[in-house]
Amino acid sequence: MSREELREIGEAALVRRIRDAAPPAPSGVVLGIGDDAALLEPARGWQVATCDTLVENVHFRRDGFGPRDVGWKSLAVSLSDVAAMGGTPRYCLVSLALPPDMSAAWVEGFYAGLHELAERYEVALVGGDTVRAQAVTVSVTVLGEVPVGRALRRAGAHPGERLLVTGTLGKGMAGLWAMEGRCPPREELLQAQRRPLPRLEEGRRLASGGATAADDVSDGLASELRELAEAGRVGFRVFLDRLPLSAAVRRAAAVVGRPAWEPALFGGEDYELLCTAPVPAAGRLISEVVGATGTPLTVVGEVLPAGEGIRVVEASGRERPLEGWGWDSFR
Amino acid sequence: MSREELREIGEAALVRRIRDAAPPAPSGVVLGIGDDAALLEPARGWQVATCDTLVENVHFRRDGFGPRDVGWKSLAVSLSDVAAMGGTPRYCLVSLALPPDMSAAWVEGFYAGLHELAERYEVALVGGDTVRAQAVTVSVTVLGEVPVGRALRRAGAHPGERLLVTGTLGKGMAGLWAMEGRCPPREELLQAQRRPLPRLEEGRRLASGGATAADDVSDGLASELRELAEAGRVGFRVFLDRLPLSAAVRRAAAVVGRPAWEPALFGGEDYELLCTAPVPAAGRLISEVVGATGTPLTVVGEVLPAGEGIRVVEASGRERPLEGWGWDSFR
Repeated sequence: MSREELREIGEAALVRRIRDAAPPAPSGVVLGIGDDAALLEPARGWQVATCDTLVENVHFRRDGFGPRDVGWKSLAVSLSDVAAMGGTPRYCLVSLALPPDMSAAWVEGFYAGLHELAERYEVALVGGDTVRAQAVTVSVTVLGEVPVGRALRRAGAHPGERLLVTGTLGKGMAGLWAMEGRCPPREELLQAQRRPLPRLEEGRRLASGGATAADDVSDGLASELRELAEAGRVGFRVFLDRLPLSAAVRRAAAVVGRPAWEPALFGGEDYELLCTAPVPAAGRLISEVVGATGTPLTVVGEVLPAGEGIRVVEASGRERPLEGWGWDSFR
Repeated sequence: MSREELREIGEAALVRRIRDAAPPAPSGVVLGIGDDAALLEPARGWQVATCDTLVENVHFRRDGFGPRDVGWKSLAVSLSDVAAMGGTPRYCLVSLALPPDMSAAWVEGFYAGLHELAERYEVALVGGDTVRAQAVTVSVTVLGEVPVGRALRRAGAHPGERLLVTGTLGKGMAGLWAMEGRCPPREELLQAQRRPLPRLEEGRRLASGGATAADDVSDGLASELRELAEAGRVGFRVFLDRLPLSAAVRRAAAVVGRPAWEPALFGGEDYELLCTAPVPAAGRLISEVVGATGTPLTVVGEVLPAGEGIRVVEASGRERPLEGWGWDSFR
């Protein structure tokens, strides 16, 4: 690994190193890193395109995230958006803004982590940009594909349908608590923050198995429910005691002194999929998703008419309107 | 225009405003701004994909660039990459990192400037991300298309061919001098900095008319020559007295006390196209490009074998190896 700083090696040499460190490009890539633009074979079906940005000291701190973690997570958050559409990612472009005193080793680590996740899902790095900035800022664009007419959107839920979520919730915020030393640093929680796994196979199963709408849980369940409600012109009833929470999240919440549902509802960074499905399809999906992927799919509520708004049912049975949001970039 | 700050209106309302301010999506956009990802009809031919980032106080200063200028230029630099491939841009995704005390009016101005350029070339904004940061950081991904097998690349030049450039050079750096008060603020120079025009039609004419390699002049002629030389395993001879320089650039260089070819060779941000073509095609291209677009295309040198390196011929006739680079993000 190289201890040189970027201002010593310069941009052209850095781009060559990034290109040389990339795994061989798969079929479909006509021209990859190193020209003015990438050339790709056209998408099969509809193209899925999404872009997300992580900023140092906003989305991660360099003392809590190694370069490999930042590389992995930067890609994971965009892959999660493709998962929420039921799509398959194919390519990524990475724009990396870096302080000039950053070490080349950090950059090499960043791409090693990114490629580690990219190879897992056969995603090829095909281009990007490297620029100078005060804080590390990573923008990742992911291009993928989905069969024509088979994409899951936020709009599409109907009153009477079930509301379901993959995996478990609250681990993103509990991971943050663990990094901040507010609860014991359990590996499960730290990994949820540093190395989230996008639910790609799960998303495709949901799309082909009859789910009617979906969103990924990046900003907390409360935010995603508001997005699904607005897009689909529906309301929701969510049962707090049905939210899937791991033992580690429950313990972390107890140590921090917060109700266990709070990180699930308002924490964000869980990268699970929230979806709706008619009652018969919901049952089939639960067995199909767990059978094919090992990931649990849990009914956490139901779709209501828009006029009902978003309602939460406490463990006591008391029902109240949902208040508050999850993560907001500017608040 | 809204005087509110982003921390008052929040991310969800900001995204709604961005979506509502966008012109109607053209055909090809199945699903635009506001879901987890955009859905697009597949590219016709090969897809062109490129991504560029502008950072406040590195690539622009807010006292020299209004929000509309930043929006325009952020898109222009990526469109210029598509132009260098001979492609046609179709869609863009914009990731905007903003300080939370930024006014909503600034953001509205940014998108107004971006759309102004986007509509000119029928490019649709289909997605992106808005996050918090200390300095304004804009990443724009542009997706386009080019007929199969007809893209211009950096590789492809052969010894004996002509080296040509569109338009005039040096105006990017002279514009910077004008903004810094080092020379009179002539509109032509300021516009070159704030509102560069990507050479899209010119690029397509070059690709279909027999150019063998191309690059856009974003980092100065010296850098682009090195890139074309490395990619194509060739050398170049450039005649300094043939570099196309406007009267305004010549005057600015005289006021600043630098040779007029210096901003052309080392300045960058000119967003012209540098290309190579065999002798007969070069002549045809010159009349075709100026006839179709009004943009001059000028022979500035010739392609040499790789062993010759990159050589510059001064007005006196003295020939010397090219020294120095143009813009480097980290040096």
